[in-house]
Amino acid sequence: MKITVINGPNLNLLGQREPEMYGGKTLAQIEESLKRQGKEIGIGVHCFQSNIEGELVDALQQAGNSADGVILNGGAYTHTSVALRDAVAGIGIPVVEVHLTNPQAREEFRWTSLLADVCAGSISGFGAESYALALLWFERKGRAG
Amino acid sequence: MKITVINGPNLNLLGQREPEMYGGKTLAQIEESLKRQGKEIGIGVHCFQSNIEGELVDALQQAGNSADGVILNGGAYTHTSVALRDAVAGIGIPVVEVHLTNPQAREEFRWTSLLADVCAGSISGFGAESYALALLWFERKGRAG
Amino acid sequence: MKITVINGPNLNLLGQREPEMYGGKTLAQIEESLKRQGKEIGIGVHCFQSNIEGELVDALQQAGNSADGVILNGGAYTHTSVALRDAVAGIGIPVVEVHLTNPQAREEFRWTSLLADVCAGSISGFGAESYALALLWFERKGRAG
Amino acid sequence: MKITVINGPNLNLLGQREPEMYGGKTLAQIEESLKRQGKEIGIGVHCFQSNIEGELVDALQQAGNSADGVILNGGAYTHTSVALRDAVAGIGIPVVEVHLTNPQAREEFRWTSLLADVCAGSISGFGAESYALALLWFERKGRAG
Amino acid sequence: MKITVINGPNLNLLGQREPEMYGGKTLAQIEESLKRQGKEIGIGVHCFQSNIEGELVDALQQAGNSADGVILNGGAYTHTSVALRDAVAGIGIPVVEVHLTNPQAREEFRWTSLLADVCAGSISGFGAESYALALLWFERKGRAG
Amino acid sequence: MKITVINGPNLNLLGQREPEMYGGKTLAQIEESLKRQGKEIGIGVHCFQSNIEGELVDALQQAGNSADGVILNGGAYTHTSVALRDAVAGIGIPVVEVHLTNPQAREEFRWTSLLADVCAGSISGFGAESYALALLWFERKGRAG
Amino acid sequence: MKITVINGPNLNLLGQREPEMYGGKTLAQIEESLKRQGKEIGIGVHCFQSNIEGELVDALQQAGNSADGVILNGGAYTHTSVALRDAVAGIGIPVVEVHLTNPQAREEFRWTSLLADVCAGSISGFGAESYALALLWFERKGRAG
Amino acid sequence: MKITVINGPNLNLLGQREPEMYGGKTLAQIEESLKRQGKEIGIGVHCFQSNIEGELVDALQQAGNSADGVILNGGAYTHTSVALRDAVAGIGIPVVEVHLTNPQAREEFRWTSLLADVCAGSISGFGAESYALALLWFERKGRAG
Amino acid sequence: MKITVINGPNLNLLGQREPEMYGGKTLAQIEESLKRQGKEIGIGVHCFQSNIEGELVDALQQAGNSADGVILNGGAYTHTSVALRDAVAGIGIPVVEVHLTNPQAREEFRWTSLLADVCAGSISGFGAESYALALLWFERKGRAG
Amino acid sequence: MKITVINGPNLNLLGQREPEMYGGKTLAQIEESLKRQGKEIGIGVHCFQSNIEGELVDALQQAGNSADGVILNGGAYTHTSVALRDAVAGIGIPVVEVHLTNPQAREEFRWTSLLADVCAGSISGFGAESYALALLWFERKGRAG
Amino acid sequence: MKITVINGPNLNLLGQREPEMYGGKTLAQIEESLKRQGKEIGIGVHCFQSNIEGELVDALQQAGNSADGVILNGGAYTHTSVALRDAVAGIGIPVVEVHLTNPQAREEFRWTSLLADVCAGSISGFGAESYALALLWFERKGRAG
Amino acid sequence: MKITVINGPNLNLLGQREPEMYGGKTLAQIEESLKRQGKEIGIGVHCFQSNIEGELVDALQQAGNSADGVILNGGAYTHTSVALRDAVAGIGIPVVEVHLTNPQAREEFRWTSLLADVCAGSISGFGAESYALALLWFERKGRAG
Repeated sequence: MKITVINGPNLNLLGQREPEMYGGKTLAQIEESLKRQGKEIGIGVHCFQSNIEGELVDALQQAGNSADGVILNGGAYTHTSVALRDAVAGIGIPVVEVHLTNPQAREEFRWTSLLADVCAGSISGFGAESYALALLWFERKGRAG
Repeated sequence: MKITVINGPNLNLLGQREPEMYGGKTLAQIEESLKRQGKEIGIGVHCFQSNIEGELVDALQQAGNSADGVILNGGAYTHTSVALRDAVAGIGIPVVEVHLTNPQAREEFRWTSLLADVCAGSISGFGAESYALALLWFERKGRAG
Repeated sequence: MKITVINGPNLNLLGQREPEMYGGKTLAQIEESLKRQGKEIGIGVHCFQSNIEGELVDALQQAGNSADGVILNGGAYTHTSVALRDAVAGIGIPVVEVHLTNPQAREEFRWTSLLADVCAGSISGFGAESYALALLWFERKGRAG
Repeated sequence: MKITVINGPNLNLLGQREPEMYGGKTLAQIEESLKRQGKEIGIGVHCFQSNIEGELVDALQQAGNSADGVILNGGAYTHTSVALRDAVAGIGIPVVEVHLTNPQAREEFRWTSLLADVCAGSISGFGAESYALALLWFERKGRAG
Repeated sequence: MKITVINGPNLNLLGQREPEMYGGKTLAQIEESLKRQGKEIGIGVHCFQSNIEGELVDALQQAGNSADGVILNGGAYTHTSVALRDAVAGIGIPVVEVHLTNPQAREEFRWTSLLADVCAGSISGFGAESYALALLWFERKGRAG
Repeated sequence: MKITVINGPNLNLLGQREPEMYGGKTLAQIEESLKRQGKEIGIGVHCFQSNIEGELVDALQQAGNSADGVILNGGAYTHTSVALRDAVAGIGIPVVEVHLTNPQAREEFRWTSLLADVCAGSISGFGAESYALALLWFERKGRAG
Repeated sequence: MKITVINGPNLNLLGQREPEMYGGKTLAQIEESLKRQGKEIGIGVHCFQSNIEGELVDALQQAGNSADGVILNGGAYTHTSVALRDAVAGIGIPVVEVHLTNPQAREEFRWTSLLADVCAGSISGFGAESYALALLWFERKGRAG
Repeated sequence: MKITVINGPNLNLLGQREPEMYGGKTLAQIEESLKRQGKEIGIGVHCFQSNIEGELVDALQQAGNSADGVILNGGAYTHTSVALRDAVAGIGIPVVEVHLTNPQAREEFRWTSLLADVCAGSISGFGAESYALALLWFERKGRAG
Repeated sequence: MKITVINGPNLNLLGQREPEMYGGKTLAQIEESLKRQGKEIGIGVHCFQSNIEGELVDALQQAGNSADGVILNGGAYTHTSVALRDAVAGIGIPVVEVHLTNPQAREEFRWTSLLADVCAGSISGFGAESYALALLWFERKGRAG
Repeated sequence: MKITVINGPNLNLLGQREPEMYGGKTLAQIEESLKRQGKEIGIGVHCFQSNIEGELVDALQQAGNSADGVILNGGAYTHTSVALRDAVAGIGIPVVEVHLTNPQAREEFRWTSLLADVCAGSISGFGAESYALALLWFERKGRAG
Repeated sequence: MKITVINGPNLNLLGQREPEMYGGKTLAQIEESLKRQGKEIGIGVHCFQSNIEGELVDALQQAGNSADGVILNGGAYTHTSVALRDAVAGIGIPVVEVHLTNPQAREEFRWTSLLADVCAGSISGFGAESYALALLWFERKGRAG
Repeated sequence: MKITVINGPNLNLLGQREPEMYGGKTLAQIEESLKRQGKEIGIGVHCFQSNIEGELVDALQQAGNSADGVILNGGAYTHTSVALRDAVAGIGIPVVEVHLTNPQAREEFRWTSLLADVCAGSISGFGAESYALALLWFERKGRAG
């Protein structure tokens, strides 16, 4: 099984940007840890980050052709990007929405997710563990066949 | 570690109520499966269901005195109960919000969660697996200690 | 044919609470009159009242197992209870929504019915006659078969 | 007792317009059936239909001078016509609002009734039976005197 | 100078419809009195009433070809008719909006006037005097040249 | 008969402030002209202007003790002052609301009048003639007795 | 192929009403030009205009029985008429919505179209060419079979 | 004089739940102190607490039969319970609404009180003193009698 | 202890303005009674009233320099004055908000208080007793030290 | 005449993404067909697609320097991109907005077009024919010169 | 060049009112510093402060007759005063809006400025430097001629 | 001191795009002038422009590593980009928001700034001078140390 992990805008600042909110781990550390976890449970993990909305659309479309699922942290685009939403809806593989923090506990413009209802499911608020739980879901789903 | 699983109104109809939406498993089967999963990873799982808002408040308060965490599917009360929210905020142990389906993919009055921002995290859309992932989070959290 | 008549919060105050609005009949008198009317047209009428949201959910679920239809005056819960709505949607027998007065002629928070679109139909504004018309509908429906 | 049945815009398409929603009966059949029902219970039934808002206002005003009550299916004008509302309020005889379907189970712009709070009562969702129940109410009201 | 007085839906019920709100004068009496007042100050007064939105549009268009100004009580259409508004804007003669009562002191759906900003001015709340003041304005305007 | 004419904030700039919108007459000229008109029809006209909300409240209260009616152009306070509204409602003599321009043809924050529903009537859009028509109404009302 | 062109309220004022916005052509000229264009491409074009909402509903219903498609400029009723919408939805032939100007570039109450989602398509902003393009679509559709 | 003090959901957590917001006193201590204060001024104080909306409705109805007034802290139900409101309106004895904190200084969903306009008065923000002041009001009212 | 009682616009009309709503006592009588009550419990009471928003701001600032607390009935400014709010927040002594009537039982524009969340507490609906209870709170607070 | 056809995000998925909604043609096929149609009527057609908002802005600016008009399907950016709108407004050549489906018949967040009021016109709902009609308009416009 | 600096309500509390938000400088110090800065760059600086809305209107009108520009910190009236706005629009000299803090980073009722769109420009968030930058703009503008 | 000046979408059209609104200077001229001004006051000025949201995020992140402050004209993204906002909040150096025109004097969708409350301050409405004032602020801030 191959899973693409896609991170949106400003997530490359992790560890440096407001660590009391987002935790002290860098994105590289999170990606590293996901790859290691993937290896243990037989999942190939490919990672991608961009600050550019359209590049994320491109990445989702490519995953649609090459992967079995996507773990997507749309970051700020979660709340504003109809384009990202359409890409998720159009690629035909399950996408799990993840967030480090709980968007509903932050500013009101973060309360709406344009992605939620076209994703397979949503996991938010557990920090880096949100990604890990998403990966576990793909593994359990694979096992359940 | 002891975890209380609390299910709100109409979840006792599972398996019988619109199975194409909620899946064919009964609540008893889900609870059974969670207890089995808990036993494997060393977590005692206690289950409770009620259709009565105030009894769920009572159950949360009791869990606050006797358990290490709560997995809460507030059902319809998720969207209307300030009382449930205040109980979650007041009991001092982590509560994970779970949903079988993705509320954002349903009627608009299900889009708002009064619970989300006082919970440790939220998992929704994975059917009975939402509970299982929540339990795994408690286990991983316990291990990470 | 067996019909359950379910009345929600404060309807036990009928006859005493603002009689110029709700009429001078007590709930017992209305229930009595419905049972008599039912007997004449061959319908067994069972009546239940509670001020507790969850007990009404319970009553709906029980009716789902034992009756052919429900006449439901949700009272104040009509406007706030997603739980009641889910119960109506989940029990698989026709539910007719009734109101003594016309909610749209009263305060704005009574204008929305969470129940209306999952009920078979709605009858409101005719006082105790609203119940009687609902019972007639079940009878005519039975006859039309 | 004389009752005028007034039907608004597009109800002349009944039987032909989306029968899965409105049923297969034509308006002529419904009117015929109401007249027959009326004859049995001693009520003279006069029927009128128009697609023109102002002609419906005219019809209501005429009924105010010649009938004992009105059964009104305002159709689409229910949601937009202040003129119809003012006519109902101004004619001094009881008007019962009926709908074939339950407007609250359809598009949001059908959720508001400008007529409801000036009518004697409302009956909706029972198909052609909505008219029949309204007629029964007039008869029971006449009997109760 | 020739002025057309146009009255909208249900104003033909004046004197009979809620006299405590609209006064006891019939529309015929008001029109008669305006014609007499017009004669004294050298203004020919033509009157028209209809319950039909499109006939009011027609009347406005005809006035645009034959009169020097319009006194318009749009009644209920004031609040809903874009068609009436477009006619007022398109006919090229001054239109004065009048109301017997003050719409802002009644139900909220009467607070918006689609006509106000395309009319020369608005006079409301003075009962039949609202028409008389409008006529005086045309006379004073004529004198001022 | 004694009438007080009260003008609110920035109306002392008339003639100088945006004359293409408000006309070229100064407030002094308008007041002069109203006094002359009043003399002809036997009405004593007293004029007051202030930019200060509370002084307008004071002036209304004084008029309540010494005049038979008020012509009030609340200017910008029309849209924001609950205090002015309460004064109008509390002084027990008829107040006519006037505006030079039609507020509904300007910015949206000028569309709401907090004064309209407690005034005897409203006249707007006729420039300085709005005041003159208001004065005529008082005269006609006096004559009609 | 037979196409009915239906124009709503105030479109009979074309050429005379605000020509800088709507162009200098009269409705007769536009209709003439459409008939000529139709003749060239083998489409019979029938034209109808009314200011009366219900007559437009009638015209749509008649077209449903006699034509292959409708080109509909609902004018002001586009934004307020649920009745027109229901007629479009009920007649079973394709209706193309056209507008001379772009409603979204005008007042906010023109931004909503109650017709758009039940029409085959919408063309707006091209002046009289909007009708011509709609006719071309019917022709191309006919050719494509 | 007999006064019933009714406390709603989660108020049994007082002293333990966020003491920096609600103060360190337990509910038992507050109730004890009110009874002592009552004894000094000749008022019998009866106390009740429940987390269940319907039990609070029951308690209000019972107080209506046995007490002279109610001091009600509806807690979270203040903002959501139409049922509680209807009970307050229906029982015919004065109810004083109290709150420990000032709801308007907290989350927006606490800004609306469904109870306020059917209560005799409201006292909020003074901690346990809110109850004491309410009791004093009953005493002063009794004395003024 | 020294307390300043500040009353806002139109409260000088008390006793004369709608006595069935505000009671028959004049402001002078209420102030007199508060001073007497103050004398009995050892509190110096200073009173001030103005219709001018800025003078109320001035009065609050002066109280901040000379008194131990303020009892403030902002009247109509309660709902519109950010300036008053900023003054309350800036002066560093406790301010108690009082109202004669319950604003939530009146027009909707009286439902919002800009003052509530910066005041120590709020008391409303008890007529002149609202002031008396506020004074008692200061006394009890002083005693509790 | 030279026309640039610009397609926004996810339109490169055409033929593959929900063909029941968007039709089975790929974007390449549509572009090919437009070029062929252009050749027949003497219009050079240049095509561009990108998922990246800013690249679409770039493409619009380049078209402003090299083409006579633009056919723009902004896709999801239609509803969210002020940047695209500003580019359309700034480039000084006519832009025609096209959509395959009718956005008003889909999710509510697709109802608003930020582009409509700065475009020459809008064509939507005709599938690939929407582009063809736009091209025809440019040709007819060129001929009308 | 002569510039008037006008400060609104509660700005006389500067240095004393929440210094962590507004800085420790008193208004006198800020005014002093602006006068000194003005002297260096050849601008006469006149300062005025009032808590009374109408006095600020007066001051703006006076500046319109005697100064070349205004630096205006409307304080709380920025968000509520249509009167202040009308004065700014009516006086014919450039007004620069300044704020010590950034209103958009505070409570929501401070987000709207009624003044912004009639001012020459706005500067906010730089503390006392906001005034200094405004003065520099006038100087640069004078130099640029 | 090193300052990066970042300009968003369509600002590369300056001088050419609606010069009556944005002025006749090109972006190159503005940047040139800022560099010259910077040289005079000892500030190194680096300039960047892009139409692509994500490239602006990149530029902000780079400035966070290499500059002492940012002058940011987000253009259209000001109103829609949560990503830009998060970048501003995350980079740890002061960012000054500038606009050529006053967004509040334009279309309503330009009234909201997602950037304002995370910027050090905002300057808008002064044309190219907005940038110059921002630069002066950095210089004065540097001097004040």
